[in-house]
Amino acid sequence: MSLVLCLVCVMLAPFAAAGLALIHQGLGRSRSAAHAMLSTLCALGIAAIVFVMVGSAWAGFAGEAAHSFKAAGARWDWLGAGQFFPGGVGPGSADLPEYTRALALCLEMFAAGLAATIPLSGGADRWRLAAVCCASAVLAAFLFPMFAHWVWGGGWLAQLGASFGVPGFVDAGGAGVVQVVGGLMALTVVWITGPRKGKFAEDGVPAAIPGHNIVQVLFGCMLALAGWIGLDAASSILFYGAGAAQVVWVAINAMLSASAGCLAAVVVTRARYRKPDASISANGWIAGLVAGSAACAMVSPEAATVIGGVAGVLATYMIEIAELKLRTDDPGGAVSVHAGAGLWGLIAVGLFGRFAEGSQAGHLLAQMVGVAALLGSMLPLIYGVNLLLNRFVPYRVDGDGDWQGMDIRELGAGAYPEFVVHADEFVPR
Amino acid sequence: MSLVLCLVCVMLAPFAAAGLALIHQGLGRSRSAAHAMLSTLCALGIAAIVFVMVGSAWAGFAGEAAHSFKAAGARWDWLGAGQFFPGGVGPGSADLPEYTRALALCLEMFAAGLAATIPLSGGADRWRLAAVCCASAVLAAFLFPMFAHWVWGGGWLAQLGASFGVPGFVDAGGAGVVQVVGGLMALTVVWITGPRKGKFAEDGVPAAIPGHNIVQVLFGCMLALAGWIGLDAASSILFYGAGAAQVVWVAINAMLSASAGCLAAVVVTRARYRKPDASISANGWIAGLVAGSAACAMVSPEAATVIGGVAGVLATYMIEIAELKLRTDDPGGAVSVHAGAGLWGLIAVGLFGRFAEGSQAGHLLAQMVGVAALLGSMLPLIYGVNLLLNRFVPYRVDGDGDWQGMDIRELGAGAYPEFVVHADEFVPR
Amino acid sequence: MSLVLCLVCVMLAPFAAAGLALIHQGLGRSRSAAHAMLSTLCALGIAAIVFVMVGSAWAGFAGEAAHSFKAAGARWDWLGAGQFFPGGVGPGSADLPEYTRALALCLEMFAAGLAATIPLSGGADRWRLAAVCCASAVLAAFLFPMFAHWVWGGGWLAQLGASFGVPGFVDAGGAGVVQVVGGLMALTVVWITGPRKGKFAEDGVPAAIPGHNIVQVLFGCMLALAGWIGLDAASSILFYGAGAAQVVWVAINAMLSASAGCLAAVVVTRARYRKPDASISANGWIAGLVAGSAACAMVSPEAATVIGGVAGVLATYMIEIAELKLRTDDPGGAVSVHAGAGLWGLIAVGLFGRFAEGSQAGHLLAQMVGVAALLGSMLPLIYGVNLLLNRFVPYRVDGDGDWQGMDIRELGAGAYPEFVVHADEFVPR
Repeated sequence: MSLVLCLVCVMLAPFAAAGLALIHQGLGRSRSAAHAMLSTLCALGIAAIVFVMVGSAWAGFAGEAAHSFKAAGARWDWLGAGQFFPGGVGPGSADLPEYTRALALCLEMFAAGLAATIPLSGGADRWRLAAVCCASAVLAAFLFPMFAHWVWGGGWLAQLGASFGVPGFVDAGGAGVVQVVGGLMALTVVWITGPRKGKFAEDGVPAAIPGHNIVQVLFGCMLALAGWIGLDAASSILFYGAGAAQVVWVAINAMLSASAGCLAAVVVTRARYRKPDASISANGWIAGLVAGSAACAMVSPEAATVIGGVAGVLATYMIEIAELKLRTDDPGGAVSVHAGAGLWGLIAVGLFGRFAEGSQAGHLLAQMVGVAALLGSMLPLIYGVNLLLNRFVPYRVDGDGDWQGMDIRELGAGAYPEFVVHADEFVPR
Repeated sequence: MSLVLCLVCVMLAPFAAAGLALIHQGLGRSRSAAHAMLSTLCALGIAAIVFVMVGSAWAGFAGEAAHSFKAAGARWDWLGAGQFFPGGVGPGSADLPEYTRALALCLEMFAAGLAATIPLSGGADRWRLAAVCCASAVLAAFLFPMFAHWVWGGGWLAQLGASFGVPGFVDAGGAGVVQVVGGLMALTVVWITGPRKGKFAEDGVPAAIPGHNIVQVLFGCMLALAGWIGLDAASSILFYGAGAAQVVWVAINAMLSASAGCLAAVVVTRARYRKPDASISANGWIAGLVAGSAACAMVSPEAATVIGGVAGVLATYMIEIAELKLRTDDPGGAVSVHAGAGLWGLIAVGLFGRFAEGSQAGHLLAQMVGVAALLGSMLPLIYGVNLLLNRFVPYRVDGDGDWQGMDIRELGAGAYPEFVVHADEFVPR
Repeated sequence: MSLVLCLVCVMLAPFAAAGLALIHQGLGRSRSAAHAMLSTLCALGIAAIVFVMVGSAWAGFAGEAAHSFKAAGARWDWLGAGQFFPGGVGPGSADLPEYTRALALCLEMFAAGLAATIPLSGGADRWRLAAVCCASAVLAAFLFPMFAHWVWGGGWLAQLGASFGVPGFVDAGGAGVVQVVGGLMALTVVWITGPRKGKFAEDGVPAAIPGHNIVQVLFGCMLALAGWIGLDAASSILFYGAGAAQVVWVAINAMLSASAGCLAAVVVTRARYRKPDASISANGWIAGLVAGSAACAMVSPEAATVIGGVAGVLATYMIEIAELKLRTDDPGGAVSVHAGAGLWGLIAVGLFGRFAEGSQAGHLLAQMVGVAALLGSMLPLIYGVNLLLNRFVPYRVDGDGDWQGMDIRELGAGAYPEFVVHADEFVPR
């Protein structure tokens, strides 16, 4: 029963990527909008093909073959050792283990695509399509599968209990596996591509470059909600054995987290800038979804609301700090919303999660180990890989490409050829 | 089996709100489009949090504790007496009654959000965000839950049979609980905020203020269809025990009602204005969905087509009368489409519904009692509450706010900062 | 179990039509965008009502009454003989055969609507709304049901085995029943309406008339994916007995086919025009979905990728040939994407399909018979019917209608009344 429910929930996953695509293209410039959307399709497509053919073998599945080594008195299960080029299923086959395995592949295929979509938000208006394709391939082939194996595939983070006597690291909806991994990827893309021309004046004062279509951004939030509920529910069932009753609360909690995140951002921006900021409020909504997904199946609705609200506040301040203090240009706020809120969500599992076994302190410790693994090993790895890739396939459009617009530069045609757009540029504030 | 089906159908509900959001922002002005969308997210968010924490206790559930009093020789069960701040579910819990209860909460959470979205259509271009938030909170805390209790929570309208010997009031898909309640709310918002500047000339002749993005309006209709099928199916299963076979017909009937409503509006506007009107045809589609939802699980496809077609004709004329005769300014036609067509749908249950028990006349009488309850008690209550709220949080933007646009006035930035829009205004026809 | 899964998958079908609608309106002119969307709603609506009331009786269902004749020593089952005006279902009914029958009706209702949406892409910017309505009615009443009966309703193509000793013709996801039938309809509409004014210079050199909103086109691709997965899965379960395990692979294969189609188009247009073309890449994505749907439940993921990739290449070249060599004006590429890729998908079933019974050569032969039936009998029939209809309801807008825009000409108002659009026209290249 739950497996059919899981399959249907997986089918809702494409809406998460569609929602994020609308958000990041809407937060970018109109002169790069078609490029943003085509980059999304290419990232999703490459991630799907590469993950199914290669990555899924390394993502592995709990209980199946895996690569491991011994160190510090424990066994470190670090990479799946499944079959490359899976053969699919013949007519009439209905083997239960095979079904579960295929479900995991399907779910992770969409999850890999979602993770590959997130960096597009950080690299908006200047990240070249060829580099997007290469980065997505590497992400789906190795980076995403390795961490997915650690958490969802029975790897060392899931087995902290067996090895070290603490509970296993828990990430029910992919806040770490999908969002933080994607968000760290976005961070390195932001670093490597540098700010857009005109974003920072010579004295470092940033110009506000507003998104070109806020209606699509806020509409994307609603689509993302539907997709998120699907992803959260499916991975809770498949990797954490959630029953149908828990899945109902997954849906309720996702809605509450998103709501609290959005409302918190509205209140904070209202308090600080006198008027609520629509773009940041959209980011608050997504931050709520991101943070809420880690513990979606094991917290009360009250906790889900708190987790989302805190995520909304955090994202708002992180976006401001990233722009004003760190002088980075992250047009869609991907780093704050996906990496930042995702890390908070992982910690929140230890604070608010209700578990049948294990002490709360033990769970919090396990979550901290996971956060450390993300920041201590995944971030350097992701950064190194992208630095290397950047040598062969330059990430940033050259010359006046971002001024001209990625649509004309890379695709030869604009997204809205019949509409008249302003020619004037934005000035530093 | 049906409960898993119900859960999945609930997961489609967010598309209904997303569709309505696209419609009402598209029928408003471009200078208020971001405000319309952010208002939607805030209304959905507040409704979700307030309903889960407070309202659901008052909405109650058939067979559970409720507040009631005795009068006229009968017991009047008027408000649920459930638990505030529900605790969610722990790991591994799979209690069937608890599951059903959680499903009802989840469904009604989305339904309350949908009801809170409807008034935004009537208040487009002038209703302040702060007032939207307050009104949504009151709606989700008390107004929606009380009527939901009467109909879906085992309240007095559902128990007409036990008390008065007529069949119970039936609203399978929420035409009354969601649409009419939301539509009456829209009516009071239209009254309180008054017409937009420039809508009526001094002699009362209305200006046509066309929607700014008809493509999004008509696309919203298709999204709404998917969400509506989900909501109709879920509530039919949960509150009226529909089996899987009936649910198939719920989907068919929803499509037929929407189709007939749209085509009827095309034909009527073609006949009256020489050319079909795209905006009104979109409203006809939604009117068909609204009216069809009351009886979705208990009518033949022929009846569903007739119900939708009549709703499309009714909505078209009501929109015209509201504007030309009553001199009200309802930019999205919310009153006609949700309240008007919803009431027609409730009556149609008595005319076309097929029931295992009870005479057709008895069912028609029960539906009339429900309609009377909506107009006789809910409308004054909703109006009074909104009048009171308006004293503390003024509903209408002050001064030249609607001329300037809600985006600049309340959010400080427009929705489409790069696109050039016409500066000229519309003139009375 | 699978029937509930099938029902839920059917509920995702509306997203396929919504996606195609966004694509064809976005590939048309802004001055015809509202018309394109209203035409879609009308086509869907008329198709739904006409199919449920009339067409479904002729589509029939395997094992039920059918019209047949004897010729060449075999029985030719060519049209269903079901009941017009189906009565729906009463309360509490849960008859299994009746449920299956209703599911088929529901699925085919949405499939007929999808087929009726496809020609709008070919007739963009010039096909009159009245003609759209008439053509959709005829398609849903007779053309679609007849071929659906041949394949899904137990007709002669499904029974090739019983009659001629070869395996039956297989079309798991509707590549033939929905896509090729719709694509051939688009072909005749393209022929009958002729090119848009200004498309071809006097010497036959075509002007590039780019779509007016590429963001919506690419977003439509993602929505279409969700709907396609639903349709592919539902028809695989219902007509080919796919189990839940196969359905997982249906979802994976659909994603892989779409991905490969899009990436192939990106690569080919990059190679030929120096820059990837976003519109054609969107068409590659849809071509992948179309071609992949025929064999979705019976091929390996590797084969699904190849099928999609070939479809993307084919569609790209066919679009170019249709415009440059055949001098036809198909704004949305409907003929290439739906008819062309659909035919390739049907052949691919014979090349890559894995079946429990029957030789590969036999299956290929059966598929060729189906392709021949589409080109040899359906195309002339569709062409004849549309030629006849064109006599009574002229298809092409008269005079300067396509120059003025269908919105003003047929609806009296534009889709984007507040946005400033360029007045200048495109010049031949």
